[in-house]
Amino acid sequence: MSFRSLTIKPGRLLNTIHETAQRFGAKGVWGPESTQTGVCRLSLSDYDKGVRDWFVEQTKSLGCEVKIDEIGNIFAIYPGKNNDAKPTAIGSHLDTQPTGGRYDGVLGVLSGLEVLRTIKENGFVPNYPIALINWTNEEGARFPLSIMASSVWSEQIPLEQAYKLQSVTDIDPVTVEHELKRIGYLGPVKASYKTNPIAAHFEIHIEQGPVLEDANEKIGIVIGVQAYSWFKVRVYGKAQHTGTTPLAARSDAILAASKMIIKGNELAKKHNCLFSVGVFTLKPAVVNVIPEFVEFIIDVRNVKDDGLSAILEEIKDEFPKISKESGRNLSVEFELIYTSNAVNFHSDCINCVRDSAISIVGKDKVREMISGAGHDSCATNSRVPTSMIFIPSKNGVSHNPEEYSSPEEIHTGLEVLLNAVLQYDAFRSN
Amino acid sequence: MSFRSLTIKPGRLLNTIHETAQRFGAKGVWGPESTQTGVCRLSLSDYDKGVRDWFVEQTKSLGCEVKIDEIGNIFAIYPGKNNDAKPTAIGSHLDTQPTGGRYDGVLGVLSGLEVLRTIKENGFVPNYPIALINWTNEEGARFPLSIMASSVWSEQIPLEQAYKLQSVTDIDPVTVEHELKRIGYLGPVKASYKTNPIAAHFEIHIEQGPVLEDANEKIGIVIGVQAYSWFKVRVYGKAQHTGTTPLAARSDAILAASKMIIKGNELAKKHNCLFSVGVFTLKPAVVNVIPEFVEFIIDVRNVKDDGLSAILEEIKDEFPKISKESGRNLSVEFELIYTSNAVNFHSDCINCVRDSAISIVGKDKVREMISGAGHDSCATNSRVPTSMIFIPSKNGVSHNPEEYSSPEEIHTGLEVLLNAVLQYDAFRSN
Repeated sequence: MSFRSLTIKPGRLLNTIHETAQRFGAKGVWGPESTQTGVCRLSLSDYDKGVRDWFVEQTKSLGCEVKIDEIGNIFAIYPGKNNDAKPTAIGSHLDTQPTGGRYDGVLGVLSGLEVLRTIKENGFVPNYPIALINWTNEEGARFPLSIMASSVWSEQIPLEQAYKLQSVTDIDPVTVEHELKRIGYLGPVKASYKTNPIAAHFEIHIEQGPVLEDANEKIGIVIGVQAYSWFKVRVYGKAQHTGTTPLAARSDAILAASKMIIKGNELAKKHNCLFSVGVFTLKPAVVNVIPEFVEFIIDVRNVKDDGLSAILEEIKDEFPKISKESGRNLSVEFELIYTSNAVNFHSDCINCVRDSAISIVGKDKVREMISGAGHDSCATNSRVPTSMIFIPSKNGVSHNPEEYSSPEEIHTGLEVLLNAVLQYDAFRSN
Repeated sequence: MSFRSLTIKPGRLLNTIHETAQRFGAKGVWGPESTQTGVCRLSLSDYDKGVRDWFVEQTKSLGCEVKIDEIGNIFAIYPGKNNDAKPTAIGSHLDTQPTGGRYDGVLGVLSGLEVLRTIKENGFVPNYPIALINWTNEEGARFPLSIMASSVWSEQIPLEQAYKLQSVTDIDPVTVEHELKRIGYLGPVKASYKTNPIAAHFEIHIEQGPVLEDANEKIGIVIGVQAYSWFKVRVYGKAQHTGTTPLAARSDAILAASKMIIKGNELAKKHNCLFSVGVFTLKPAVVNVIPEFVEFIIDVRNVKDDGLSAILEEIKDEFPKISKESGRNLSVEFELIYTSNAVNFHSDCINCVRDSAISIVGKDKVREMISGAGHDSCATNSRVPTSMIFIPSKNGVSHNPEEYSSPEEIHTGLEVLLNAVLQYDAFRSN
């Protein structure tokens, strides 16, 4: 039996998405239908425990062996012909943002589940085992470290650092370790790509941007992830009375910060980068006092590491110039809070995604893309061949209850994932 | 005896300032000396009660009749020759900002006390009684309405509106009326310029700006107060992922807001106005989400009402243009939250301040000025002749523990106040 002839049961994946959304954290109504809400399923919360228990039950019923590692990652291994070999993996995450939708992360895990169901129903036996993985705390919303547990597995983040993380969404903060124990997901398996290896990692995800939709394309063949850095920028000025201080005598921190935000956007255009400010606070925050202090976080991204370095260098050169020109008592400082290098996915996996996508939607409906956001696949790619599949996001919206991809787009994505994974399975045996 | 020959006891005013600061709310250490702190004496707090009790005791011991009105204003009437006539008044406020200094408001009341002490010690009897007034809640810090009780007295704010104001600095908010009763300062006298009149109002105050210090001048002859308006500006954009949304596809509320802040400053320069933003918030305030909403408060000032109108008109024209040009889903709206017309003080009072100041420091060391900030004198000026005296503020700092004027500057200010008030007393009898 060729893997290309497997029959997918129409609509079941979407039903599974909606069923689990309803049962485990539905929130944020945006339309009259019961499916028109988002999901709030914070990592290691009761809803996360609920969906994990359901996931374990579902995969066990398909004949999977389920392993839980010490950071709560769940590996459901579906048997193949050659069960001593490393499994080919499909993975993503079941946790969401506080204002999350129904698809981000969830689509990847539940599409993987549908791949296993389809293989089993069609009586197909892959050459190698297939691991379906639910990675813990990809969002970094409750415990502020994104892509956390896949990075522990890839040994880029120490286990102890992850264990000690404190929640930022609970009135009484708790640690990752505490919550793993509480919900029964601090497992016995060591979290390591060395002792619990996989052969490759595939992940299907919503694009979270407008590119595919705007171009009327169906599948993004993700060849890498852009580099990005987050810096806190602190502007120190002087608190002065708004009514009594002439413009020329001011050291106005918010005026300098405004110029920096505009300069950052100009530099982003020039360097073909992205520049954003999502967090901005000031002191003393009184109507008639010129702010003495502004802190904001810049999020700067480029498809290449050296492109990112180039704009950051210019920002670090230009912002102090702005503060100097804006008042005698102004200064600025930077603090790096997160950085992620550009990721180039593996050509073996990319080839499988490309062949699969073109055979299903045709070469005019696919696009090779760089992912703007980070994913668990960034962590796995540091250790094993990896690639991703994108489907369109309506209006480019994500991290929002209104996040949406159509039933057809979801079905097409599933087809591409199934074929890409089984093509890789065939490729491994050659 | 001519009023020009009265002897002021050197240093006593400053001692009184420091003594009351120490006893009633010293806070905010900025140097090693015991006098190097600010003061936190919120209106109608226990510290405010303490200083009020002290003030009543001090003025009674000088032979004043003390009247307390129904909004807590204290009128201490020092007798003259003609006690059926309205008193000439000296007034300011003993309450402070949460991060207040030792001089804002306090200087005005305690200089008035020193004027009365000096008159009495010198055996001088004025033609008319002199009222020393402590106005309730000038700062509007605990109960958010500045110049509150002098405006009730001038019948520009209804008594009931003031009574109902809720505190914003208490965990369990309380009303003005409740706190007046609690500290024993809801008095029997009607708060009205009609039934409890004064003939004129003089107020000495720190400049709260850098103009006198920068020009090495000693006294500001305050001829008026500039007009100002506060508007909330709300910018509505669209929440999008920072990593996946191309610059051209964004509706970035913080980028538009930054352009508005810069435009506001440019227009202020063009119109010779002041423009400031002291309060700025955004949503959802997540590092990797482009803000969908920004709200900031603009504080715009001009010495003339029509100058203020002109810049506000241009702001209301330009900000929507900026939002339109910055993204397809951007819009902006304005909400007026406070406005105050320009004030022109009375020439009779200004003349007394000018003559007094020039005779004491010489005409090269005085400056005719427009006050940038509002004061109780704005309320009194709506009903009776009024003027103010400014002394230099070190580095232009106020509403800050480090607010400072030198002992010499304070002494000079007191001399000018004494002479101006007694010149007005003489002028009235001619």
